[in-house]
Amino acid sequence: MVHRQFAALGDATRLAIVEQLARGPSPVGDLAVPTAMSLPAVLKHVRVLEEAELVTTVKRGRVRECRLREDALVAVAEWTARQQALWSARLDALGLLLEES
Amino acid sequence: MVHRQFAALGDATRLAIVEQLARGPSPVGDLAVPTAMSLPAVLKHVRVLEEAELVTTVKRGRVRECRLREDALVAVAEWTARQQALWSARLDALGLLLEES
Repeated sequence: MVHRQFAALGDATRLAIVEQLARGPSPVGDLAVPTAMSLPAVLKHVRVLEEAELVTTVKRGRVRECRLREDALVAVAEWTARQQALWSARLDALGLLLEES
Repeated sequence: MVHRQFAALGDATRLAIVEQLARGPSPVGDLAVPTAMSLPAVLKHVRVLEEAELVTTVKRGRVRECRLREDALVAVAEWTARQQALWSARLDALGLLLEES
């Protein structure tokens, strides 16, 4: 369900994590989060992104690496484009009606 | 801030309201929400969408009409496209590296 992905992205810290991971994978400890944030708090945000199927994490030795899923934002992009297409089709139709009247 | 828009869309009821409004404006009372939902609860969801600058409402007589903003999903679409472009550029660069090695 795409609303879960929207909810996961509805937080400034998680959005910043996704922006960072779009530039490349990162160990959880190197994620650019507010400096006062504890590692457990960061892990909680990562878990939310993982549950929303936006990121995956792999443990390599003592480091947990975090990466954006290849299909991460496909559902979000598709939903958004669909609504925009419906809405602009409606506005175009209204425009035609006004021209004709 | 786009994370506020994501948060506003991170709820199944609000997402359904936006989907409906993409097809055309609607009085708040005609929004297709779960039947058990009270009008104050619907209004609360509409208010969240309004604060996130996704919808506007206008009172006409005794009816409050709700409509999608023309620029409603532009910020969401742009943010998403930017992250996808960064991520696919990275994957392309990795692909080239692998071909060369």
